[in-house]
Amino acid sequence: MKPKNDTFLRALLKQPVPYTPIWIMRQAGRYLPEYNQTRTRAGNFLNLCKNPDMATEVTLQPIARFGLDAAILFSDILTIPDAMGLGLYFAEGEGPKFERPLREEWAIRDLTAPDPDTHLRYVLDAVSQIRKALNNEIPLIGFSGSPFTLACYMVEGGGSDDFRTVKTMLYQRPELLHHILQVNAKAVTDYLNAQIQAGAQAVQIFDTWGGMLSSAAYEEFSLAYLRQVVSGLLRDHDGERVPCIVFTKSGGIWLEKIAAIGCDAVGLDWTCDIGEARKRVGGKISLQGNMDPMVLFSGPDAIRKEVQRILVSYGSGSGHVFNLGHGISQFTPPEHVAALVDAVHELSRAFH
Amino acid sequence: MKPKNDTFLRALLKQPVPYTPIWIMRQAGRYLPEYNQTRTRAGNFLNLCKNPDMATEVTLQPIARFGLDAAILFSDILTIPDAMGLGLYFAEGEGPKFERPLREEWAIRDLTAPDPDTHLRYVLDAVSQIRKALNNEIPLIGFSGSPFTLACYMVEGGGSDDFRTVKTMLYQRPELLHHILQVNAKAVTDYLNAQIQAGAQAVQIFDTWGGMLSSAAYEEFSLAYLRQVVSGLLRDHDGERVPCIVFTKSGGIWLEKIAAIGCDAVGLDWTCDIGEARKRVGGKISLQGNMDPMVLFSGPDAIRKEVQRILVSYGSGSGHVFNLGHGISQFTPPEHVAALVDAVHELSRAFH
Repeated sequence: MKPKNDTFLRALLKQPVPYTPIWIMRQAGRYLPEYNQTRTRAGNFLNLCKNPDMATEVTLQPIARFGLDAAILFSDILTIPDAMGLGLYFAEGEGPKFERPLREEWAIRDLTAPDPDTHLRYVLDAVSQIRKALNNEIPLIGFSGSPFTLACYMVEGGGSDDFRTVKTMLYQRPELLHHILQVNAKAVTDYLNAQIQAGAQAVQIFDTWGGMLSSAAYEEFSLAYLRQVVSGLLRDHDGERVPCIVFTKSGGIWLEKIAAIGCDAVGLDWTCDIGEARKRVGGKISLQGNMDPMVLFSGPDAIRKEVQRILVSYGSGSGHVFNLGHGISQFTPPEHVAALVDAVHELSRAFH
Repeated sequence: MKPKNDTFLRALLKQPVPYTPIWIMRQAGRYLPEYNQTRTRAGNFLNLCKNPDMATEVTLQPIARFGLDAAILFSDILTIPDAMGLGLYFAEGEGPKFERPLREEWAIRDLTAPDPDTHLRYVLDAVSQIRKALNNEIPLIGFSGSPFTLACYMVEGGGSDDFRTVKTMLYQRPELLHHILQVNAKAVTDYLNAQIQAGAQAVQIFDTWGGMLSSAAYEEFSLAYLRQVVSGLLRDHDGERVPCIVFTKSGGIWLEKIAAIGCDAVGLDWTCDIGEARKRVGGKISLQGNMDPMVLFSGPDAIRKEVQRILVSYGSGSGHVFNLGHGISQFTPPEHVAALVDAVHELSRAFH
């Protein structure tokens, strides 16, 4: 069943739209005071992710405030390794960590893809609840981290400045890393398909750390597994096409290669000129992006100017979903987000 | 007067060489025990930079250990803003900071380019002393930060995760940032020319943070000033051509544009395939790079394999200076650096 506002889904499929749709990565997040209130009530971030009622509540908060064209499931990219038993936790002010990072060969050989219906039930419940709450006004996006990005956190045991541990494994014991990636690719495919069956109307794969690899290593250790996931995804559900977006942060240099793995759209960070990107993919897929999140710290006039620059660069016609080139900063003034959404809706009509 | 080993200079000018020359960004650094000893003796990093005897000593340390084809002046990229009076200091474990970040309009309007002969004498003295100590065996590289990269530190007051302060200025008060960049471009040009006159036989401009900008902002706020610096450089000194290398970290996506500003070579980080890069610049300039520094944490066999992959990708002929795609990590085992240098020298002969 099509949502009443289906501009986001149509733009992903390059069908005509009256204006360029917009959603914002991390749109349900710490820049919203109401989000911080719910989070305080939850006790911590992980409780918030694991409670479908509260996940539904925060997913809807930015929708209530701004005229966004899609909602995205509120969750974390590390739910899969958590379900694998690595013990996800969030140290205050330090980002995600794992109690049991994946370092030993026996632990790697023992790794298996979790069954989403049992181990990630709370996510699927959240998807169903959010769909009900959205009342078919706008579509819901499901998501997952990419096999390589999950492996980075699993092997490093958390974030990293240089990814020394996972890269040492990559160069010294490539077969071990491939084993992890193989399991992760199955886990991500099963997880996204379960989200689609629970009601997600489009999916995005976040390859946050693939862009830290050499070109050759990216193809072998990230892109190959993204391709495997994309080819295993349900692409139709409930009589509707389910578009799939792949976003490799800092992956602009490999755009043609990413565009060729079978996804419907590629997410771009802000370092890529979106008009050049459109030429490079030969109009074969849609593009999502790509304003620098830091533009939101200037003011309504500068935001409008940058929106116009990006719209002019992309040019006329469908196939563009407006977004930031990375998740929104927690320090962003919410009224500047309103200015962004309004500017995109208003200024983009001239291009359709 | 040509150095006895001039493979580095010849490769930058695309003249025939018997093997691919190599130097390593941050080759005089914390991964060397002898460097740490000198630094302890100096008391802190800034003393080490400001004392020409000790700067000469650490510059020569990696040359004594490895068969490197060039030495690079030991200094810091923030000597210029320090000479402008911003008060550079290094907080323990926190990287560089400025006592007086550049935020107020009056301070920006008052900013002037320092005279290198007086305010940066210690750098020029180090250049002369290192040249004497090198005894014309290998060439000496001088360097500077780029106008935009210096501005990032000057406005932020140190490093940053998101460059929020400088980007807010960029979008909200672009004319103020342009004023800083204009002063910085003059300062960098004067500084590099003074290094050349003191004996630097090639120069590299480090645009460490230009890659954090949108494509449009990169052209307007970083590339335009790189072009201005390059066109103001002395390109011949002492009867010899002085090649100029421009390195924008994460700038691979803009390679054609960087290659067109008049430099002799472009530095590449490891995300760029060097063979594709060679095609993209049409063989018009030389390329420097581009092994992932993390490869040095594997072992001699993996290092050799990666060296071979990069050499094969570049292909036959001159115009390639081997390097890492970023500064060497302080945790690198020095014996792996020896394996790298030997592998490059040995394996590259087949390509010349």
